[in-house]
Amino acid sequence: MSEAVISSFDFAAYLAKEKIRVEAALDASLGPERPKQLREAMRYSLLAGGKRLRPILCLAACELIAGESETALPTAVAIEMIHTMSLIHDDLPSMDNDDLRRGRPTNHKVYGDALAILAGDALLTRAFEMVSLRSPGISAERLIKVVGELSLVAGAPGLVGGQVADLECEGKDVDIDTLEYIHIHKTGALLKASVVCGALIGGAKDDLLDALRTYAEAIGLAFQIIDDILDVTSSSEVLGKTAGKDLIADKTTYPKLLGVDESRQRAKVLIEKAKSVLEPWEDDATPLLALADYIISRDR
Amino acid sequence: MSEAVISSFDFAAYLAKEKIRVEAALDASLGPERPKQLREAMRYSLLAGGKRLRPILCLAACELIAGESETALPTAVAIEMIHTMSLIHDDLPSMDNDDLRRGRPTNHKVYGDALAILAGDALLTRAFEMVSLRSPGISAERLIKVVGELSLVAGAPGLVGGQVADLECEGKDVDIDTLEYIHIHKTGALLKASVVCGALIGGAKDDLLDALRTYAEAIGLAFQIIDDILDVTSSSEVLGKTAGKDLIADKTTYPKLLGVDESRQRAKVLIEKAKSVLEPWEDDATPLLALADYIISRDR
Repeated sequence: MSEAVISSFDFAAYLAKEKIRVEAALDASLGPERPKQLREAMRYSLLAGGKRLRPILCLAACELIAGESETALPTAVAIEMIHTMSLIHDDLPSMDNDDLRRGRPTNHKVYGDALAILAGDALLTRAFEMVSLRSPGISAERLIKVVGELSLVAGAPGLVGGQVADLECEGKDVDIDTLEYIHIHKTGALLKASVVCGALIGGAKDDLLDALRTYAEAIGLAFQIIDDILDVTSSSEVLGKTAGKDLIADKTTYPKLLGVDESRQRAKVLIEKAKSVLEPWEDDATPLLALADYIISRDR
Repeated sequence: MSEAVISSFDFAAYLAKEKIRVEAALDASLGPERPKQLREAMRYSLLAGGKRLRPILCLAACELIAGESETALPTAVAIEMIHTMSLIHDDLPSMDNDDLRRGRPTNHKVYGDALAILAGDALLTRAFEMVSLRSPGISAERLIKVVGELSLVAGAPGLVGGQVADLECEGKDVDIDTLEYIHIHKTGALLKASVVCGALIGGAKDDLLDALRTYAEAIGLAFQIIDDILDVTSSSEVLGKTAGKDLIADKTTYPKLLGVDESRQRAKVLIEKAKSVLEPWEDDATPLLALADYIISRDR
């Protein structure tokens, strides 16, 4: 990777452009769902802003393999739907009981518990619809592999398993292995799937997939460490969600176990590891390298 | 269809045999999910008995097309997982607030609301895993079509949309068009998908699929009419779920709109229509014909 390429790459412009693409695709993805209340509850959370990091990772991975990423847009949308669904359900009163998300009242605060649960269910199934029925020009072989990845990551072996473990640990003393188990399932798995699914749509072979899996695992864990740090060091206003809630819920976090400095160091090592995996791709990997740096330098 | 074949077909034995096959496949479908509480909540509802009508319809449709149905077992399991998931979520306090299901306390009564929601989510995603990753020997082309059918039927265009409409209508005067809208989405869609997905796994071409769709739509609506009738005429003990709850919730039902006799007549006409569609298959359709008769004659 030449220094010249990295310095000429305008990451802010790249991120802004990709975000606009993703927002447009998300907006177009929800049709005339009936009943109207359900449609509104789905749109409310899906179009509530956010960094759109997962779909952008998906597009970047596809581009790395295939040279373009238009064909990965439906999968990128599917991944953001799964992410949004997990946020809606996790925020419910019977779970994390959170009032604020992406700077706005949570879904159940606006639409009530029943509609929030059902909007989540509908987004989850719509994700599989995006891949299976709304991904023109991609072979069934690739699509069924993407469905397989998403089915694992959204369920008991991923998001759901992580959330259950997280709920079980509240108020308990938790060691670092358990903490990593929760984070890998609750956050890491979907970040990893974002990269893997983008690469699958692009037609990646197994050896390339393995390298990208390593990259994605490392940035996934780093992402969560930074999330934990931001919960202690940032404000609700900047985060767009309730700050300090890990402390209030007495959750085990990286800063609690290792301190802020040591936690940040650990994230840094992970990001270096992730970037080193991409060396064989040289300049083509510039967006994924920049996304790795972004994960550790973000302030929300 | 010869009378001799119908009379020599032992439907009770057929149903018992297929139910055993389905129960065994359901039992084997859940692996060592972690955490343990999640696994138990998933198993509690998935293995709670029930008629297993949907998976049996799926197997029968596959058999009609392909002569065997072993390859459709993972899809049959997926369909029962989606059905179970919708029961768990619909029973929640914020929705139908039901305490009894299949003769036992509902999932949230045993495991709490959070785990009930998450067990439902995990079953829904596991359904897509069954099709995409646990259906050996079936082409990706067929599997992705099944994923497409299931993604529609489980979400806003199916179960979720029907449940939202149902919740919106509680305590309101509802006309028969709205009632049928709810039933087609909440009950009919998944019964139809059971038949269609079985046929897809079996390799059915479009014209055969269309005939089976007509069969399945008719039995789906008849099934719901009988459900409405049983809610008024049967007891909680026989039903295994709370009887008379439609009356208590002041829901619009077929008996309320048309009376019991007229409702039963309407179900009968639908079943005759369903059976007539199967004529081209002659004796091969015996199980599907008998299943149609079973739907109208059942007492729970």
